[in-house]
Amino acid sequence: MKSSVSMLVRLVVPVLVGLVMVSAVEAADRDKLLSEPGVYGTFAAFRLDADWGKQDQTVRIAQLTVLKGVVEQHREKLAIDLYLLRGLSDRADLLFRVHATELRETQQFLLDLQGSPFGRHLTDSAVFSGLTKKANYVPGMPDNLKADLKAPSEPGPKPYVIVIPIRKDAAWWSLPQEQRAAMMQEHTEAALPYNKTVKRKLYHATGLDDLDFITYFETSRLEDFQSLILALEKVKEYRYNRRFGHPTLLGTVRSLDEIIEVLAQ
Amino acid sequence: MKSSVSMLVRLVVPVLVGLVMVSAVEAADRDKLLSEPGVYGTFAAFRLDADWGKQDQTVRIAQLTVLKGVVEQHREKLAIDLYLLRGLSDRADLLFRVHATELRETQQFLLDLQGSPFGRHLTDSAVFSGLTKKANYVPGMPDNLKADLKAPSEPGPKPYVIVIPIRKDAAWWSLPQEQRAAMMQEHTEAALPYNKTVKRKLYHATGLDDLDFITYFETSRLEDFQSLILALEKVKEYRYNRRFGHPTLLGTVRSLDEIIEVLAQ
Amino acid sequence: MKSSVSMLVRLVVPVLVGLVMVSAVEAADRDKLLSEPGVYGTFAAFRLDADWGKQDQTVRIAQLTVLKGVVEQHREKLAIDLYLLRGLSDRADLLFRVHATELRETQQFLLDLQGSPFGRHLTDSAVFSGLTKKANYVPGMPDNLKADLKAPSEPGPKPYVIVIPIRKDAAWWSLPQEQRAAMMQEHTEAALPYNKTVKRKLYHATGLDDLDFITYFETSRLEDFQSLILALEKVKEYRYNRRFGHPTLLGTVRSLDEIIEVLAQ
Amino acid sequence: MKSSVSMLVRLVVPVLVGLVMVSAVEAADRDKLLSEPGVYGTFAAFRLDADWGKQDQTVRIAQLTVLKGVVEQHREKLAIDLYLLRGLSDRADLLFRVHATELRETQQFLLDLQGSPFGRHLTDSAVFSGLTKKANYVPGMPDNLKADLKAPSEPGPKPYVIVIPIRKDAAWWSLPQEQRAAMMQEHTEAALPYNKTVKRKLYHATGLDDLDFITYFETSRLEDFQSLILALEKVKEYRYNRRFGHPTLLGTVRSLDEIIEVLAQ
Amino acid sequence: MKSSVSMLVRLVVPVLVGLVMVSAVEAADRDKLLSEPGVYGTFAAFRLDADWGKQDQTVRIAQLTVLKGVVEQHREKLAIDLYLLRGLSDRADLLFRVHATELRETQQFLLDLQGSPFGRHLTDSAVFSGLTKKANYVPGMPDNLKADLKAPSEPGPKPYVIVIPIRKDAAWWSLPQEQRAAMMQEHTEAALPYNKTVKRKLYHATGLDDLDFITYFETSRLEDFQSLILALEKVKEYRYNRRFGHPTLLGTVRSLDEIIEVLAQ
Repeated sequence: MKSSVSMLVRLVVPVLVGLVMVSAVEAADRDKLLSEPGVYGTFAAFRLDADWGKQDQTVRIAQLTVLKGVVEQHREKLAIDLYLLRGLSDRADLLFRVHATELRETQQFLLDLQGSPFGRHLTDSAVFSGLTKKANYVPGMPDNLKADLKAPSEPGPKPYVIVIPIRKDAAWWSLPQEQRAAMMQEHTEAALPYNKTVKRKLYHATGLDDLDFITYFETSRLEDFQSLILALEKVKEYRYNRRFGHPTLLGTVRSLDEIIEVLAQ
Repeated sequence: MKSSVSMLVRLVVPVLVGLVMVSAVEAADRDKLLSEPGVYGTFAAFRLDADWGKQDQTVRIAQLTVLKGVVEQHREKLAIDLYLLRGLSDRADLLFRVHATELRETQQFLLDLQGSPFGRHLTDSAVFSGLTKKANYVPGMPDNLKADLKAPSEPGPKPYVIVIPIRKDAAWWSLPQEQRAAMMQEHTEAALPYNKTVKRKLYHATGLDDLDFITYFETSRLEDFQSLILALEKVKEYRYNRRFGHPTLLGTVRSLDEIIEVLAQ
Repeated sequence: MKSSVSMLVRLVVPVLVGLVMVSAVEAADRDKLLSEPGVYGTFAAFRLDADWGKQDQTVRIAQLTVLKGVVEQHREKLAIDLYLLRGLSDRADLLFRVHATELRETQQFLLDLQGSPFGRHLTDSAVFSGLTKKANYVPGMPDNLKADLKAPSEPGPKPYVIVIPIRKDAAWWSLPQEQRAAMMQEHTEAALPYNKTVKRKLYHATGLDDLDFITYFETSRLEDFQSLILALEKVKEYRYNRRFGHPTLLGTVRSLDEIIEVLAQ
Repeated sequence: MKSSVSMLVRLVVPVLVGLVMVSAVEAADRDKLLSEPGVYGTFAAFRLDADWGKQDQTVRIAQLTVLKGVVEQHREKLAIDLYLLRGLSDRADLLFRVHATELRETQQFLLDLQGSPFGRHLTDSAVFSGLTKKANYVPGMPDNLKADLKAPSEPGPKPYVIVIPIRKDAAWWSLPQEQRAAMMQEHTEAALPYNKTVKRKLYHATGLDDLDFITYFETSRLEDFQSLILALEKVKEYRYNRRFGHPTLLGTVRSLDEIIEVLAQ
Repeated sequence: MKSSVSMLVRLVVPVLVGLVMVSAVEAADRDKLLSEPGVYGTFAAFRLDADWGKQDQTVRIAQLTVLKGVVEQHREKLAIDLYLLRGLSDRADLLFRVHATELRETQQFLLDLQGSPFGRHLTDSAVFSGLTKKANYVPGMPDNLKADLKAPSEPGPKPYVIVIPIRKDAAWWSLPQEQRAAMMQEHTEAALPYNKTVKRKLYHATGLDDLDFITYFETSRLEDFQSLILALEKVKEYRYNRRFGHPTLLGTVRSLDEIIEVLAQ
């Protein structure tokens, strides 16, 4: 039954979303957006309202089809990832992660999303953004540590995603740069053993929201992820966190089609 | 009158939930899930919305019958316990405790639950998860203390359940392991006298939510439970709690059929 | 006009609530429940939803009649007191104080209450419970102070009620017992002058909610009550409060019939 | 157009509110209530619900007419002042300040208000009360300072109102009385230059809510008011505030008729 | 399609808003209001309710046309700026910044706005106000620093806006004036390098809300803005912030016509 819904959506898209060019989106830029510095990452989490589930399945499928169109259209410029939070987080049902070189383009996507028939059922949004930067924290870091850090994580699917916002306290920022660098090296070393099974990405949020950092994790082994966080809680740098989590978002990585399947049923 | 509703639900289930295999679920795995390390425990608390009670009793019974089907179906893989919080906690009416070896399976159950006609009346969910681990905190612990800890609690029903989430502060995690172990031994000794009448279970939550631990208690003697918590508040380790409770969930252990009875009326 | 509504309700009760035995409830146990140790006191505060007032008066009277039946029925086992908070507190409109030897019986009452047609209009409940204990805090307390404490408060109605939840900090619980006892004696002496005009009752809540104590006050002289609290804020023990109030509930003591009158209009 | 609505309301009142005696209320007591010690001041702030504005203007005028009747009726015993917060505060649209010698009478007014057709549109109430006391803080205060304090503020309308709730910390209350008195004299002297253009009134709230004081200000010169608060933030006593504002309510003083005009349109 | 909606609105305005004089508003005062001291700046942020998007487009356009009339009418006395927050902030969809010499006039505008058919869809408002003052913080500041500060920012559009509310702690206000001045000079010097690409404006909010300052930023280069905030977090004055952000509002500068376009679709 699942695949039939999926097929239906795939067939219906070109018809319903006539004006939208669902041309083969060039994925060339996606890799760049996900790896380069100077890119804005926006995390937009939503709940579905109570009316969503009360609609007829055909109505829901039609609305999800437009959702597909909206996402595909913006994928020409943006890297858009989707996550299912429902059942694992109590703050939201869906999470969009959007990468863009200009935050205005992310805003336009979210405006189109929220203005679509599907988007009118999205409520209680939580939105926060950060900027990717070149890793430059620890100038005197040993070369072998750097090499280890650059080693790619193990291949294979990493179904779980965790997003943890962080705010440092005023004492942190008033420390001399070398002291912060030394503590970040200790932090980095503590994290190293989990490099293979837990993929990490860092966003700098200072000024864009009441946050300093957004940390993003993907893993297939939640137990390793928990050990990583425990290791990080034991280094000195952790004591300078005024906020760590709150909310912590936990969910599973899903393709757009998978999300549509889940919501169509 | 109660038993007639119950009987009705029991009769109606096989008819309404045709596609669901309500075969005799093997309970073999349940014991394992509830006793072994490496198992994820998820606590999902819900309120019923205002519309629930306004529906006709027959509609409610039909929806509860589907609930029964959803729970039974997932009991093939998961250990699912239910609790009635209404009247004793102000945060939620119902609590599900779900044990699984993979959190994705718990997510699938909660997706099915919330997507069911009954689930559409569940709102304001609070969801948090933790992992069971081997008891390994205190290496130098005397053997007789270990033996006492392993003594089973008194047999007989333990109708009351209490769930207390805990977050330790940064100072706790920066202590050397031996100091934490010594404090945990003091904690354990303080708790020992209540071992017989208050059953406890611990979940490690670090990184999965804004928590470090989830503590779960069952008892028939709330006064003993209160004495236990008072004893724990007097040991040094307690001073390292940044959060203890908030919310504290208090309710009564109920079977699925009992919950259905209460909600059908 | 007031008394006619009241009379109507009194006449209608036996008819509408046929199945409920509104026999003359023995008040013998009420005195015991309100004076003995080992009794659970539950405070359940509710708002009325926006729909309540939009109903026809006859519908409201019918629903209030069932409320009367539900309360009367449970008064066979429980001591149930009612308070009107609307107009003096912003958190709730109604407060029930329920005393029971088993918390399950209080839960059953609140389940029946919230499941009744009237109860479906109760929202945003705040529920917290505590246990009465023998006064045993201060072992070396002078006998004349003990005698003064046992002196009954002045007779006559005490229309105002105030409920203040309290949580002590970790430093309090880690103090040696004698130090806490000495501070409690100072606290008790500060409160003594108000013993005649302000009636007090203490509940131990540790573990049942995110509280350690629930303090309950009745008075006809709010000015004396304010002076009492000011006196208590000046003793050392007060510095160990992590939470004092928040919420503080203020209302007036009302009979069930008075509440019904107010809500029927 | 404004005056025609106003006139309509004035004409309609005697007809619609037949049972209410809208006799010429004696204002004699109002002056007493507003100037003497031992009077309870209650601040009740409300939002208007979304349905209010969707009603027909004639329905709204009819409801406002009843509001007028309710207020006038209670003005026989109570001093009732109204303020428009909408546009300047985000917590509420309307503020009532009620002075009474017995808090029960204020409760009765607010019960009648919320039970009226207009009151059914009032939501999210915030209610807090305090008691006026004789100024007695600083025993050794110089006589000329006392005289300056008693000098009346400049005549003329003071259109702006600000209400700031305050809670002192435990350290404040544990100070010896003389130290607090000395700090209050410093506070008083800092406030003196603004005595002419900013009218102040103090209410003692300890125990009635999670507050110790409610400070009330009227002015036509908000810039002076801001300078006053800045001056008060610089004296030692300010450091003992655990809460100052939160919420701070800002609005404009309006007559009942002006409020009715605004809400009728 | 965009421009046709815009044209439609432009054509319809004079017809629908007959009574409103949409004469050519003199912009002379706008410059004054935006540059002089002694002006009140009010930030009013709103969400659109769920019903807004469910209305027919023609209904929405009619309501937006009235919005245009309300804004134009008040622009005779007030400087009104609009910002689109949706997609970048989770607290609100729209932000109005209003400058006035009298706060009453701002209140009247917001009353008219919220009372209009469009305004009835605005919910969850957040409103806070501050006063502009002459820059007078640092008396001994070098002249070249002063000159640098007065240099205008680079010309060209600055599409991004950020609003950060700030509250200083009690320790800040109890410092001697010279010490605060010295710290403000350090603050000013740290900010100087970003003067060209990040436009700033400061409002003094003490007493008008639970804030001391409102800081307003416009930029086309968010990365510079982030560097500016990071620089400010490293100076001593930052340690005296009790609140910085929370909420931080992030959005894009839009003309009234652009807002209408977005909302009409």
